[in-house]
Order: sequence, then C-alpha cells, then structure tokens
Amino acid sequence: MGFLIDSCLIRALFSLYILSIILASSAAKTRHLKWEVEYMHWSPDGLEGVVMGINGQFPGPTIRARAGDTLHIELTNKLHTEGVVIHWHGIRQIGTPWADGTASISQCAINPGETFVYRFKVDRAGTYFYHGHYGMQRSAGLYGSLIVDVAEGEKEPFHYDGEFNILLSDWWHKGSHEQEVDLSSNPMRWIGEPQTLLINGRGQFNCSLAARFSSSSARECRLRGNEQYAPQILRVQPNKTYRLRIASTTALASLNLAIGKHKLVVVEADGNYLQPFSVDNMDIYSGESYSALFTTDQDPSNNYWLSINVRGREPKTPPGLTILNYSPTSASKLPNSPPPVSPRWDNYGSSKAFSNKILALTSTPKPPTTSHRRILLLNTQNFIDGRTKWAINNVSLVLPPTPYLGSMRFGLSNAFDQKRPPDNFKHDYDVMRPAANQNTTSGSGVYVLKFNTTIDVILQNANALKANVSEIHPWHLHGHDFWILGYGEGKFTENDVSKFNLKNPPYRNTAVIFPFGWTALRFVADNPGVWAFHCHIEPHLHMGMGVVFAEGVRRVKRIPNEALACGLTGKLLMNNVHK
Amino acid sequence: MGFLIDSCLIRALFSLYILSIILASSAAKTRHLKWEVEYMHWSPDGLEGVVMGINGQFPGPTIRARAGDTLHIELTNKLHTEGVVIHWHGIRQIGTPWADGTASISQCAINPGETFVYRFKVDRAGTYFYHGHYGMQRSAGLYGSLIVDVAEGEKEPFHYDGEFNILLSDWWHKGSHEQEVDLSSNPMRWIGEPQTLLINGRGQFNCSLAARFSSSSARECRLRGNEQYAPQILRVQPNKTYRLRIASTTALASLNLAIGKHKLVVVEADGNYLQPFSVDNMDIYSGESYSALFTTDQDPSNNYWLSINVRGREPKTPPGLTILNYSPTSASKLPNSPPPVSPRWDNYGSSKAFSNKILALTSTPKPPTTSHRRILLLNTQNFIDGRTKWAINNVSLVLPPTPYLGSMRFGLSNAFDQKRPPDNFKHDYDVMRPAANQNTTSGSGVYVLKFNTTIDVILQNANALKANVSEIHPWHLHGHDFWILGYGEGKFTENDVSKFNLKNPPYRNTAVIFPFGWTALRFVADNPGVWAFHCHIEPHLHMGMGVVFAEGVRRVKRIPNEALACGLTGKLLMNNVHK
Repeated sequence: MGFLIDSCLIRALFSLYILSIILASSAAKTRHLKWEVEYMHWSPDGLEGVVMGINGQFPGPTIRARAGDTLHIELTNKLHTEGVVIHWHGIRQIGTPWADGTASISQCAINPGETFVYRFKVDRAGTYFYHGHYGMQRSAGLYGSLIVDVAEGEKEPFHYDGEFNILLSDWWHKGSHEQEVDLSSNPMRWIGEPQTLLINGRGQFNCSLAARFSSSSARECRLRGNEQYAPQILRVQPNKTYRLRIASTTALASLNLAIGKHKLVVVEADGNYLQPFSVDNMDIYSGESYSALFTTDQDPSNNYWLSINVRGREPKTPPGLTILNYSPTSASKLPNSPPPVSPRWDNYGSSKAFSNKILALTSTPKPPTTSHRRILLLNTQNFIDGRTKWAINNVSLVLPPTPYLGSMRFGLSNAFDQKRPPDNFKHDYDVMRPAANQNTTSGSGVYVLKFNTTIDVILQNANALKANVSEIHPWHLHGHDFWILGYGEGKFTENDVSKFNLKNPPYRNTAVIFPFGWTALRFVADNPGVWAFHCHIEPHLHMGMGVVFAEGVRRVKRIPNEALACGLTGKLLMNNVHK
Repeated sequence: MGFLIDSCLIRALFSLYILSIILASSAAKTRHLKWEVEYMHWSPDGLEGVVMGINGQFPGPTIRARAGDTLHIELTNKLHTEGVVIHWHGIRQIGTPWADGTASISQCAINPGETFVYRFKVDRAGTYFYHGHYGMQRSAGLYGSLIVDVAEGEKEPFHYDGEFNILLSDWWHKGSHEQEVDLSSNPMRWIGEPQTLLINGRGQFNCSLAARFSSSSARECRLRGNEQYAPQILRVQPNKTYRLRIASTTALASLNLAIGKHKLVVVEADGNYLQPFSVDNMDIYSGESYSALFTTDQDPSNNYWLSINVRGREPKTPPGLTILNYSPTSASKLPNSPPPVSPRWDNYGSSKAFSNKILALTSTPKPPTTSHRRILLLNTQNFIDGRTKWAINNVSLVLPPTPYLGSMRFGLSNAFDQKRPPDNFKHDYDVMRPAANQNTTSGSGVYVLKFNTTIDVILQNANALKANVSEIHPWHLHGHDFWILGYGEGKFTENDVSKFNLKNPPYRNTAVIFPFGWTALRFVADNPGVWAFHCHIEPHLHMGMGVVFAEGVRRVKRIPNEALACGLTGKLLMNNVHK
C-alpha cells in the first residue's frame, strides 16, 4: 500500500514536471540566426569607407527576443585574414561563459572561413547590444542592437504606445587597422576626435541637417532619404508615449542626448528598471544603455530634433541629428528652431547630477550589506618604452594568445602571468598630479575571486600624463551586474564607505569614473567563468586599460572545443592524441 | 675468424660514417632566426603609409645561408587580429611540406601572439625570396630576400668580384585591406596600376631622381640619403664584374630592368644556372628571380642609372630608379644621360625573345622524355554573381578554412570539394574571344597526382572579359621546379608537342603565359605534400586564379601539431580527447 501511494505521487509529480516543460517551451523559444561577418564598402556619413558588416548590413541586424529565450547564432567569419568574436553586451552568460565573445578571455577567435555557434539564454528583459571584442573591430563597425522583451504574460512597470531603437556610435575616416598602428606606435599617435556621430549607423559629414541654424559653413544636406547616411526619421502620432531604447557603442565619445521641447523620463539602465525621473537631456557613456519615455505633447504641425553631442572632451565633432516627425506633418519639414543645446562639454556638474538621479526601482536586487574583499583600481596613463599606455595599479593589460577560460580550466600555468595583480596602490599616490615616475609595465595576471563572495571595486581616477588632465572612463563588467554604491571626488578614503548607497543603488554593467574622482561598485562573484572588466573606450582598452576577473572556473563544464582550439589549450588537447 | 673480419668491417664503416657526419656538420649549419611580424608606419616612396614589417625592418631581413644549411625561423605574429604565414619562394621543402608557408594549404595560419617554427633545408644555391601567403599580405609589404650561397668548397660556374641584392616590388597608397574589399565587391573595383615601383623597398612618388631628364612635372628629389625612400646606391669599382641578384615580389607589375650603357649577362633563374646570354635589358615577372653579371667597363667619371619599368600593362607608374656609382666618383653626381629606355609596354615580341633566350646549363637536370598525364589549364576571366573572378577550367579557386595537407593526410572528406577539377576544357573553346557564357563557379577541389609520375601542364591563356584583351600571368609552382618545354601562340594543339624543347629547357618554379598564348611545363610529382600552383599576381590569386596539386600525401610523416591546430584537423585531434 505504501508502495502504491509512492508510485502515485511519483506519477503525479512526473506529470506536473512534463506540464511545466510544455508550458516553458511554449513560452521560451530558441531563436536561430545565421550570420556572416565581412568587410564592405559603406557610407556611414556620406564619405565612403569600409565597415565591418553582418549579412550585408551596417549596423548588424537587430536581434529581438523575449526573456527566457535561447539565442543560437551561427557566426561565420568571412574576413580574409582576421579572426572575429562577438560580445553580447549586458547578457550575463550564466552557465555559458564561453559564449561571452571576448577573444583571449572566453574563447579562441573564430578563424577566417570558420563558424562558431553562440548559444546562450537571454534571461532578462532590457535594452542591450552586441559588438566585436577583438582588436578594434568595434571601431570598424561590428555592432548592432539586442532587444529583449519581457516574457509572454509579463508586463513592463511603465506604459508606452510605441518604441524606437537608437544605437549610438562614432566614426573616423581613418580605418581601424591604421588606428591600431597609430595607437601602438612610438610615440603614440592619438586617434583624435571622431569625424561624425552616428545614430543607427547614420550621420552627416559633408553637410548638415541643421545648416540653417548653424554659424558654421556646413551646407544643408540634400537627401532623398534612401542614402546610407540619411537619418532614420522617428515617426510619431500626437499625444502618445514612446519608449526610446538607447545604447552607446561609441569607440570614444561620451554623449548627451536630447529631443527639442520634449522631456525624457528615464526608466531603464543596462537591463534594470529605474525609479523614473524626468530630464531635458541625458548623458550616455560608451557601454551604457537606457530606456527613456517621451510624450508627444507638442505642436503636431512642427517636427523636432533629436540630437547627440560630445561630453567630457572638447568636441570637434558636429552633433548627430535625426528628426522626430509628428503625423501628419511632412517628414521633410525641418524643425523651426535650432537643435537642443547640450550642457557644455566640461560641465561635469551636470553629468554628475544626472548620474546621481539614477536609482534602482524597488524590485531590483539589493546589494549585500558587506563585502568580502575590496579591490582598489588606480587608473593611470603611463609610458612603456616610450609608448603611451593606460595602467591599472601600475599594470597595463596585455591579453595572452591562449584564452584564460581554457587555460585556467586546464591549469596551464604558462599561459599567462601567474602573479596576481595588486588589490591596491601606493597609499601616498597623488591622484591630483602626474605621476612622479610615469613608466609602467605590462602584464596578463588575473584577479581570482573566491566563488560566491561579495567584491567591492573602487575605481580611482587620477591625473593623466599632462598636468590638470583627467579623463572620463566608462568601465564595463562582463558576466555580472554591479551596484553603483557611490561617486566621489579626489582620492577614495575609508570615510567614504559610510556614504555608500545600500538602499537603492543602480544595478548596472557599466559605470563611469569622473575626472579626478572615484566610483564604488559591489558585485557578487557568482558566475563561474573568466570575465573582462575594462574601460569601454576601445582605444583605451587597446592601450591596456582593463583587468581580468575569474571565479569558480573549476565549476565550468563542457567548454566547446571550438572555444579552446588555439594556443596552449589547443596544443594540450592535441598532444594527447597519437597520430 | 669470419666474425672478426665482419666486426672490423663494421667498425671501419662506422668510423667512415662518423667522419662523414663530422664533415657534413662542419659544412652545413642550422641558422636560427627569431622574427616578429607587425604593422608599422613606413614611407616606402616618400608618402607615409603602413607596411607589414619584420623585426622593425621593411623589407624584412635578408636571409643568407649556404646550400645544405637548415633554416630554423621562429616566427611570432605580433599583429592584433590577423593570422600570418610566410612562404619561402623557390625552396622546394623536400620532406617538409608543412613548412611551405601557404595558409589553407600547408598549414594553419599563425594566430596573433603565437609562434610557429619554420624549419627546412635550403638544398640548392640560388637567389630566392620569401613573402606572406595569406590574403594580400604580400601586397602589404611582407617580403624579403633569401640568398643561398654554394656549399663550402663548391664553386659557381661563373666568376664575379662582388654582388648586389635587388628585390623588386610595387606599392599602392591604398592599403591592402581596402584593396581586398575592392576586389571582392560587386561590381569589382580594380586596384589599378601601382603608384610606385620599389627597389629594395625604396621608391620615389612625389619627386624624381631623374627629373632633369623628364618631360613630366615631377620635381627633382632632394634627399639626404638616410630617408626610408632614398635609393640604395650600388657602389662599384671600375673594371670589375658584379652579380646582380634580382627577384620580383610585385603584387601586379611585370617589369623590365636595365643599367644604362652596361650589358647584362643572365646566368641564373629561380635557383638554376643558365647558358649565359647577354642583353641590354631583361624582363622579370612576379615570382621570378635571376642573377645577371655586369662589368664596370664604362667611363668611371660618370655614374649610371639602374631602372625598372612596367611591361604588359599600359604603365601609369614612373620607373623605379637607383644609381650605379663608380668609385671614386661622388654618389651624388647624377648620370649625364636619361635612364635607359625599356621596350614599349606592349612590345610582346621583345618579351618573347627574352624568354626564348633562357636555356638551361648542361649540368641542369633533364626532363623525362615522356609524361604520364597532361593537364590543360584554361585561364579565363569570369563573373560569379556579378563579381569578377579568374577561373581555371571554369573553376575559380576558393581556399577552404582547413589546410589541405592535414585534411588530406587524415582523409577528411568534408574539408574541401571532393570532386576532382577537370584536366581539360571544352575542345571548341575560342581562346581569341570573350566567352559566350562569362559566368563561372567557385571550387576547392584538388588535382591528385600519382606519386613519382611525370606531369605535363599546358597553361592556356585566353581572351579576358573585354574583347581583344588578354593579360600576362606568371604562374608559380610550389614544392617543385618544372621544365618550360615551350611557348606558343593561340590554342595549344597536339602538333605543338613535337616542338617541345627536351634538350635544354629552363628548369624553374615560375613561368609566364603571354597574351593569347600557351606555355608547356613538365615536372615530376616526387615531393609528398600539397602544393599551390597559381598566378603570382596577388589580386589575381585573390580572385581565384590558382589550382592545388597533391601527391604522395600518405607518405607525409609527423606534421607538426601547430600546422594542424585549426578547422577540421584541429577538431579531429581534439575530439579524440576526453576532457
């Protein structure tokens, strides 16, 4: 009798299990994509150049999925001599660290002619993007949008009637290969400010949409609308609410976005909901994404500018522009007033005020109240053998040819510097002045984090090589979100800990450090894998501005062979074979 | 007693064996080189661009060895995202087919940060060179000279008092990456004629060494002599004989070389001695090398021009120039007459006459009198989906991601097209007119040659896409020399066989086909491996102008893992491992 009851229970539980699988599979999908990456002629700003495109498109195709879906992307490298990888920026890759798309870290670069399958779950709704993460292939144009809608039956915590996708980038007329040589040369040749700001891969260099409002000599654009560099018009109905999904994959530029005469209500950052707040314009740094709502409450017989401007560096680049077109007004009717003016580039007060408005919605996970380890990371600009570099605690990151994920998983001690990089910097370092000794050294060591511990990272900015210069750096963490516990001026001290926001800190994957300031982050090292943490300014990363975190690597199972088929891991696996 | 005698004999033989090893090792050396390949700023013609350099040099270091030496070259890839290989042009790689340096054919490309050891014997004295053989890295400047002297105690069959090394190339201001995109685009954008001809990596674009003799508006060069683009002066003593070692690694240009008022006695081609013949100027096609002697029998109070000019294509490129400087005349004294004039670019009669003068010295190996197989290869220009291609017997070569040497050795039938490409073309094909159907298809099939058989190849030229156009193509064979049995006009017929030169045909690795003509080659398939045979014009190879030969692949032993660590061979070897 006991047996019969147990058997019934098991049968019932099994039926429930099957039902749950059916329900889950009816909601969550596996989305199959076949992509080919290749160089192609393109005219992002009216001047023809070469971009890295996907399936003949620039920017690459927009991915649209639902939370819980699995993406299965077969990526074929159609370049002639270059490897390629794609990073899915903001997707935490829980359980799939080999799909993070970082060459030298999570996988071997995909060789020309070969195909790699990125298969991973998009576990959370939000506004994301993807981009190349090898050399400076992001600068070459390898990027696109990744939008994850809420799971079927679920709801966003705000209402909107329509949405627009706005992917921001910056564009140089000098190719990314030559930029790499410039940045690596002795003396370093800086790439300078971008020629053009792009909105969804479109900008204007030799003409201006707003020439009539400008004192510059730029001529008015004469566009038919089907040019590769013609702006994508945002067509709206009056008295509706729209969601702007904004992501910045700029190589360098920090940006400010505004829509003439319209307020923006910011509701999401990096895939996490925010306490909504209203602004006239918003900052967005490379690596960040936002959603902002706006209501079409203005005179519908006019059109309005959406503009982006450079922040934090003296701008030499005209604003990026497109038009908000009220129905039934003609899209070709230009707005009757100049594009909205962003705060002055060096008005850091405005930027800090914006950053401080960003607070998590109550449903957001809360940070642990204490941490197990604090890592202070000093950001300095230095020289190595006369070449300009960026260093973190006096180590300028050089990535090894064998990806860390494989070499750490297999315990290959000759694959990278086994010395752990420092958790701190000299107590008496004066962050307000150029370093006494401006030379540094390169390294490939890893910060090994104890699995499931809570880590605090204090990003400490400093004076660069030149006196009175300190730059903005947006730092991006792979594999995790972190809580931004606070920003401060000057050097971080123990007293600052008491001011940490543990109540509603924003939960994000990218955080900026302001000139001469610090930013405090907290995260839980709960995602087995090896993860890049770096300045999202691509030339800065090229110059060594990053670190590598690793946690729970022994828990990583079944790394696909394709991710290991290079360098010492390739050798290791092949050496076991008798030919 | 029988035992004792045998024992003595064995001891004696053993002593002789040891002695021979000692003698051999005292003569033949292993030469160790460590090379790093990287992009660098350079000014090959007075305009700064980016070149692919080796150890900070452009062209790469000159290798100097003796016949019988082993070269051990540790090549490290310091590029950021590109693979690299180096082909040792003219070295047959007997027993070391994996060291031939052809990506997709003999080895996996060396990934960024990784090192590959090229170890091979240079078994024969001669004038050779090396260059990149991946994408268009040769066009990017990855090349240098490889000079093999006769073994110690041996003598050349001619006398000379000194020698000069002359490596010829052509240079474009548009980078090779962009050239690749241009060539692959729809419609194809042709790269056009080079901006500058380089002698040992040096040419002049914005000025002319011989401006005073020119009707063009070029200004006279004002050089200190230490500029990267200043010519290397050839300093000579009067009444001596000098050897010019000339090799052409041009991407495109066929060249003609002359020294004002000096005869050239041609004595070597592609590492084989010739019946010496005297000329006023000599043709040299991409992939060829020559030695020519000249005697300094002119007025020593003057200097003389060495000039190179374009052949076979309407030249838009000024001559490449340097100066023969007689001691004790000042090197800065310009020659008192204009640079020597080459035959008109389309004077093919002159080129054919030169080619027909090239005959083997009697000591050269003789061709077998008959062959086992004849392969006719029709060279046509075609379209695939609107893109311009070159095809051989209607197949435009596309190289597979997994190198043939490994995939054939391990019998991987899914690594490339298993269908063998055709040995012939349609009997009624009219080589004098554009094809009726200009479309073709791509393929990666292999010509499998029975080991140790004699193969005849008839390279058949034809009309290109445009009526009345047929181009010069210098075809280069890897892993072998071939005998050039003859050249002919129009379509090859059975009657032409009787005119084959079996007595003293030149023995070479590169042979040209003239417009609307054919060239007959014979070689013995006696070198186990997989070997490229292709037009040495790099953009033509990029557009599919090549075939692949394989012979005795099962005899190939111990391919280094590094040559196999990619694609399906990498996968095969890794799949055998349990992780």
